[in-house]
Amino acid sequence: MAGINRQIQLVELPKGKLSPTHFKLAEAPMPSISAGEVLLKTILISLDAANRAWMQGATYRDALESGQVMAGGGLAEVIESKAEGFAVGDLVFADTGWQEYIALPAKNLNSVPRLEPLSYLISVYGIAGLTAYFGLLEVGQPKAGETIVVSAAAGSVGSIVGQIAKLKGCRVVGIAGGAEKCKWLVDELGFDAAVDYKNEPVHKALKAACPEGIDVYFDNVGGDILEAALFRMNNMGRIACCGAVSQYDGDAPKHGPRGIPGLIVTKRLRVQGFIVSDFYDKREAATAELVKWVAEG
Amino acid sequence: MAGINRQIQLVELPKGKLSPTHFKLAEAPMPSISAGEVLLKTILISLDAANRAWMQGATYRDALESGQVMAGGGLAEVIESKAEGFAVGDLVFADTGWQEYIALPAKNLNSVPRLEPLSYLISVYGIAGLTAYFGLLEVGQPKAGETIVVSAAAGSVGSIVGQIAKLKGCRVVGIAGGAEKCKWLVDELGFDAAVDYKNEPVHKALKAACPEGIDVYFDNVGGDILEAALFRMNNMGRIACCGAVSQYDGDAPKHGPRGIPGLIVTKRLRVQGFIVSDFYDKREAATAELVKWVAEG
Repeated sequence: MAGINRQIQLVELPKGKLSPTHFKLAEAPMPSISAGEVLLKTILISLDAANRAWMQGATYRDALESGQVMAGGGLAEVIESKAEGFAVGDLVFADTGWQEYIALPAKNLNSVPRLEPLSYLISVYGIAGLTAYFGLLEVGQPKAGETIVVSAAAGSVGSIVGQIAKLKGCRVVGIAGGAEKCKWLVDELGFDAAVDYKNEPVHKALKAACPEGIDVYFDNVGGDILEAALFRMNNMGRIACCGAVSQYDGDAPKHGPRGIPGLIVTKRLRVQGFIVSDFYDKREAATAELVKWVAEG
Repeated sequence: MAGINRQIQLVELPKGKLSPTHFKLAEAPMPSISAGEVLLKTILISLDAANRAWMQGATYRDALESGQVMAGGGLAEVIESKAEGFAVGDLVFADTGWQEYIALPAKNLNSVPRLEPLSYLISVYGIAGLTAYFGLLEVGQPKAGETIVVSAAAGSVGSIVGQIAKLKGCRVVGIAGGAEKCKWLVDELGFDAAVDYKNEPVHKALKAACPEGIDVYFDNVGGDILEAALFRMNNMGRIACCGAVSQYDGDAPKHGPRGIPGLIVTKRLRVQGFIVSDFYDKREAATAELVKWVAEG
């Protein structure tokens, strides 16, 4: 298939803050496929905080290098197939990178149903939704009546964490930046309270919003907010470590929060990291439940 | 019962390093007992690192206050009883404090069998042995063939952790201070390797001693050594947070190790705090197993 493959390349790894100058739009020849592969056309790209973390060094995937196509997951449609089980028109979620076309082996693809709107497949049914689902339920293990706090609460993952926790009968407190986001969490999403970390002292505000302490903290940010939550955790509390956006945009990692490991010992906390793909064997059941919850409003 | 009760009082809470001047020997009247209580004579006092942590503030028990009898667990003999189930001559482990006699309600006592030597009841069968047993097996969950690292390895808890891990078929690396302790770990206790944190760079030495990374780190110290272990942990590794002796003798807690929460996320670590009494419902079975292991040498 002739043609041009437009792609966004990472021309330089950021030393400090990431900016548009670290990327460039480039044109490459259209890829062709071999036996066992499919040719994909990218429909939607999933922009995740983890994309930034990959630029800092090896994580659960190799570190990104300058000059390569920017990595990232995407929703794509099969436009040519030399692999059993995949036909033209099928939808998949795959590590497409930020480009229009890519040839990939069938084993690296996750089939997804054609649900409308397609954008749900990279939000509530995609990485964000499944990350919220597994991180909260499998790692955090909230019980009805417990207090759940989530940071970056107005973000793609955090907003879903809070809604699932409400469905499970928990008191839900979100931490977000700015009055508008906080109002949205409470008025639109039904959070019980919100803490505006840009305009109030987080330690004090968390204390007021969580009079009975915190049982599960879903951490998207790390840093000072993780520290504030640590000091408010109840005994036997759980911290689901999903990410550390406060640490991504800058140099090497800073020192960790105060109270580690002291508070982890005395409060017998469980602090557990996860990435969504650890739970992909339970993906179908999770998606089915998310679809049901969305249908119910 | 007339007489004098000699006791060691904590006359002042330490601001920096703890020293003998913070304590004084005092004499109090012999306590008397009411219904439901027993009078105990202390035989052996269990000196634990946690005693120091209690001076820093509230932990899983109220903070110690100046002027009170120094708190601590002890092995004691019943010398008078007004409580069902306890007779003169019975041995118990209890929160005796650092004093010769104490009156306590029966519900606060843990009966222990009269095993010889009695000192084993406050070491391998006492807090240290049970802390090692539950922390390693319940929290760390080591599998045969995995690499286990323990800090303060020549201490009361650490030395038992290493020996249990060897019984479970693990590669065991101890971190201790000084060539003599390290030699003892390898030559006498059968550790596979030892790292002398006073005389070698811990990051590098851990890398050499753990060519396949660390699967379980039993942390008794916190601080820089916890940080070094974090960077060597394997994916899905477990860190059992038992204590933080590096943090006890000084002021308020310092910042935590670098890489928290970043490394916890990318390596999907489980970092879990515990205290031995969380597992007291399994105490009898644990003691029976420890007795068997000691008998087998």
